[in-house]
Amino acid sequence: MTKLRAAVVQTEPVFGDVAANVAEALELVPAGCDLAVLPELFATGYQFRDSDELASLAESVPDGSTCSALRAAAANSGTTLVAGLAERDGDRLFNTAVLVRPDGTVDRYRKVHLFWDEKLIFTPGDLGFPVFAACGTTVGLMICFDWLFPEAAGTLARRGAKVICHPSNLVLPHCPDVMPLRALENRVYTLTANRVGCEHRGEAPLNFIGRSVAASPRGERLVECGTDRTEAAAADLELDLCDPYLTPRNHVVADRRPEFYD
Amino acid sequence: MTKLRAAVVQTEPVFGDVAANVAEALELVPAGCDLAVLPELFATGYQFRDSDELASLAESVPDGSTCSALRAAAANSGTTLVAGLAERDGDRLFNTAVLVRPDGTVDRYRKVHLFWDEKLIFTPGDLGFPVFAACGTTVGLMICFDWLFPEAAGTLARRGAKVICHPSNLVLPHCPDVMPLRALENRVYTLTANRVGCEHRGEAPLNFIGRSVAASPRGERLVECGTDRTEAAAADLELDLCDPYLTPRNHVVADRRPEFYD
Repeated sequence: MTKLRAAVVQTEPVFGDVAANVAEALELVPAGCDLAVLPELFATGYQFRDSDELASLAESVPDGSTCSALRAAAANSGTTLVAGLAERDGDRLFNTAVLVRPDGTVDRYRKVHLFWDEKLIFTPGDLGFPVFAACGTTVGLMICFDWLFPEAAGTLARRGAKVICHPSNLVLPHCPDVMPLRALENRVYTLTANRVGCEHRGEAPLNFIGRSVAASPRGERLVECGTDRTEAAAADLELDLCDPYLTPRNHVVADRRPEFYD
Repeated sequence: MTKLRAAVVQTEPVFGDVAANVAEALELVPAGCDLAVLPELFATGYQFRDSDELASLAESVPDGSTCSALRAAAANSGTTLVAGLAERDGDRLFNTAVLVRPDGTVDRYRKVHLFWDEKLIFTPGDLGFPVFAACGTTVGLMICFDWLFPEAAGTLARRGAKVICHPSNLVLPHCPDVMPLRALENRVYTLTANRVGCEHRGEAPLNFIGRSVAASPRGERLVECGTDRTEAAAADLELDLCDPYLTPRNHVVADRRPEFYD
């Protein structure tokens, strides 16, 4: 497929209200998309008080209730869904993103770069940066704070990803401006789905900044959502633009000189 | 030193008019700076017709006329100067940046990632990304198109650079928006000195975009020059802001997980 209809879905979960959060998120997915990306931890909310609370809300992949709801929705709509959720695997708890195809198959990525107090309750991702065949192309997954580390998107792109799906719960302001650069420097599409709203379950309130954004291999911002409302935004991705030649003599992978990189 | 006065100097060289280009550039350096950065190939101009023309204008480092003029100016002013020039080393021609201290010592960086037709006439840099003690801190050098490769600024920062000097001759539009991100992702200052004007010596005219920019470790744009005039802009760099902790639990180097990076 050389063209893909893709959406970023910006939600406002209520902490702990899993069934309603999942239903409201799926309601927002636009009809007719090949691919839709939902935020990080979209089913549970973000700010767990401790690992016990996280364990009580985490679920197994692919058989937990959230993943099952995503599989049903993907099968019904024909849309491949990417979403972030709290995964329980034995004693370990991961901040995970799943890729759920209409045929019911599920792949997963476990967040490699944990942000702030996530380090107290989640196990760091142990699967690296795998890429997956989906929607007739190759898709990579990264989660939220992975944006700061150029190697996340870079590794996915060098493994063949043409579309990077990026479920997020952003509180810092920079990421929506960074992602068009990540798209440009790797000549891929990026789809960042963020949430909005505020959670006040710790010492200070956390305000999530919205601005879900899709960016093109040319570094263009294709769509950007607002800062304070739930919404979805869709864009047509022209996969032929994922051309590693930035100029006739500059190939963004072949030009790298890793012998000089620390 | 915890505070540094630094300038980016935006020039408009006339191709081949080395003496005038050097004089006009040095005239623009603001008084009282600890560090000033001039553009890539600031003495010669950019678009050499072939390697013979390049060879005729390239000079040795540190004994060539341009480097000697920079040494005299640094000694007179007390300002450490960074500037891009065409270097001849035996049969090899490099797109080089020199760092010239008031005490007359000179270090160099040879452009690692060559852009477009530069590949036809320059030898790719063979020195990697060294960092240098200067102005009481650690300084790294990169040149123009190195901006696309996050490993350039990343390697310099991981080797201890707190200030990255970036002589440029930009024709693509992205770099002035990218550099604040490079500063943020590495928690360093960046100083990009670009040129303005047009050269029409090849098949098509090359328009240089100006927008020389200084950025802070917080990803802020401290100063930005215009698109069509020669000028200099200075900023105070607070080196204590070069703090690798982005949050109390997130260290931009220690958080990397290179075992998962390709």
